[in-house]
Amino acid sequence: MSAPVIAIDAMGGDFGPHCIVPASLSCLAENSSLHLVLVGQSSLLEQLVAKHSGVDHSRLKIVDAPEMVAMDERPAQALRGKPRSSMRLALEQVRDGNAQACVSAGNTGALMALARQVLKTLPGIDRPAMVTALPTQGAPCLLLDLGANVDCPAAQLYQFAIMGAVAAESLGTEQPRVALLNVGTEEIKGNQQVKLAAALLQQAPGLNYRGFIEGDGLYRGEADVVVCDGFVGNVLLKSSEGLAGMLVAKVEALFRRSVAARIVGAAALPLLRRLRAELNPAQYNGASFLGLQGILVKSHGSAGADGFKAAIRRATQDVEHDLPEQLRSRLGQFLSGDRLSSGADDVTAGDGWSSN
Amino acid sequence: MSAPVIAIDAMGGDFGPHCIVPASLSCLAENSSLHLVLVGQSSLLEQLVAKHSGVDHSRLKIVDAPEMVAMDERPAQALRGKPRSSMRLALEQVRDGNAQACVSAGNTGALMALARQVLKTLPGIDRPAMVTALPTQGAPCLLLDLGANVDCPAAQLYQFAIMGAVAAESLGTEQPRVALLNVGTEEIKGNQQVKLAAALLQQAPGLNYRGFIEGDGLYRGEADVVVCDGFVGNVLLKSSEGLAGMLVAKVEALFRRSVAARIVGAAALPLLRRLRAELNPAQYNGASFLGLQGILVKSHGSAGADGFKAAIRRATQDVEHDLPEQLRSRLGQFLSGDRLSSGADDVTAGDGWSSN
Repeated sequence: MSAPVIAIDAMGGDFGPHCIVPASLSCLAENSSLHLVLVGQSSLLEQLVAKHSGVDHSRLKIVDAPEMVAMDERPAQALRGKPRSSMRLALEQVRDGNAQACVSAGNTGALMALARQVLKTLPGIDRPAMVTALPTQGAPCLLLDLGANVDCPAAQLYQFAIMGAVAAESLGTEQPRVALLNVGTEEIKGNQQVKLAAALLQQAPGLNYRGFIEGDGLYRGEADVVVCDGFVGNVLLKSSEGLAGMLVAKVEALFRRSVAARIVGAAALPLLRRLRAELNPAQYNGASFLGLQGILVKSHGSAGADGFKAAIRRATQDVEHDLPEQLRSRLGQFLSGDRLSSGADDVTAGDGWSSN
Repeated sequence: MSAPVIAIDAMGGDFGPHCIVPASLSCLAENSSLHLVLVGQSSLLEQLVAKHSGVDHSRLKIVDAPEMVAMDERPAQALRGKPRSSMRLALEQVRDGNAQACVSAGNTGALMALARQVLKTLPGIDRPAMVTALPTQGAPCLLLDLGANVDCPAAQLYQFAIMGAVAAESLGTEQPRVALLNVGTEEIKGNQQVKLAAALLQQAPGLNYRGFIEGDGLYRGEADVVVCDGFVGNVLLKSSEGLAGMLVAKVEALFRRSVAARIVGAAALPLLRRLRAELNPAQYNGASFLGLQGILVKSHGSAGADGFKAAIRRATQDVEHDLPEQLRSRLGQFLSGDRLSSGADDVTAGDGWSSN
């Protein structure tokens, strides 16, 4: 495999280039085969790069993009009103073969709309889904969608399940156990979309479909791939981050309650911090878009430099596994004919992030 | 206030009367003013009660119910096919004034349908919502709905917000901060129901509405009341339970990794277990139905005896606060006219738990 080239939308996220440029340069220093294309306001990016010494400029390119997509901008505006945004030009680097993957911390809705227009979806896929791996009591579990699609008809949930299974296989899981997230495991439970998706998945040839799963089953490690709409997946992911943060704060407070507790804490906290590092959300940062004709990783908008580095590493892994090609070659087996197309193939139609 | 009388559906839940009877008798022994009505197969209940000594029979009554609602039974079957189920007869104890509250660990969908038919909703309320308090970095936060309504139009989310605010006030929170759970805090985010509900809530007179909140904000304690549909709320609750369980397992494993870790663990684990007891999901077990003309508490189907006791204590508290009466007197302020009725006032229409 040739050296990976990653295009970085340097202007996105809550902290913008002041966080993304140092994170990118740090990745470049750590991985000597990595090449990066920083896309954004070139004068600003050059200034920020110049602050760092020892940068290998032979593996770093800056592409000027005079416009940027705001975090609260409507997808339609990003699509039609900003032909030279850093987000669009970073995606075009992938489309034009100048990079093998794109990483952005920008507005999810705009990123979804632009990615569908610039990179296009794979044959048989209506809309891409965002996926990430969550730690569980067993092996990590792939959860999708994480927020790119707030409303999902059954056919889309079906497509997400298939894509999740292929992604899990490419990560080394044989016959991955696929489950639909629901409010109960009995057949009568759930909303209409989930029940219809279950009926489709029960008939999917070659898929190891295990039925419904609840949120607690996910963390017990009862499935390798868990499928839900983007509203639910986003809430699950963010509430998990919030709960983990609350528990860490409570444990630290616990070991400050008394002198005796402080003494125990002095010994226990370093161990607990090691566990925290293992489960660190920043380490799990970076959600891959599945279903596009190219690799795109979304970093959390609020990610700091460590989180953004994790997103770049995820993109590098996706390049190694050549996910879009694996998906393309396997989807034909599962997706036959029009039966499973939801018909939402227009770039903006059904885009839950837009209020159109 | 007179002594509280609680009707117990003794046949529900994953463990049935073998768990519920001992839990009920333990509550009876702990609270000398409590009266209980156990509803179920009387011969079985009498046998189970007879195993315990020192029971104050003057505060315990058994009501025979020859039928029971199965955990996977369709609500329509429970409504029409079982006129003498323990669930229905326990609710009728409340309707007929023989008890002030009902506790059931049975099938949520059937409980919702029967409660609407037997107890009726309060004026202006289309469907009841299940609410519980979650621990946060600040004060506990009321989350609703937890799974009684898997699909919610905006008018229902509005009603839930109002009911949640009144419930929080009755628990002593002044001007409770109310927020809508969403996938982002920017105005353009979310699905149609959430956006419409936000527009309604922005105009609610006297409501301290704070806009959108994400799952991490909930656990940071940024709101006193968080509103979502029952699918999302149920996933949030159960995934939180699952994550907390996973973290406990990982911490315990951490302190077994080496001899040194075991020594630290011997001192640290008792402290951590105290924290775990404070945050114990069993302690938070019991979701109150808000919006009925009577008090109903749902215990987790998989709750053990400790969990079921917590649900009985919650019902006792709801009796003390006389929640339905507080709601009735406050709802008029918020709910004016037909504008905010979703029209789903038929007992089975829109019941997401039924596949009809």
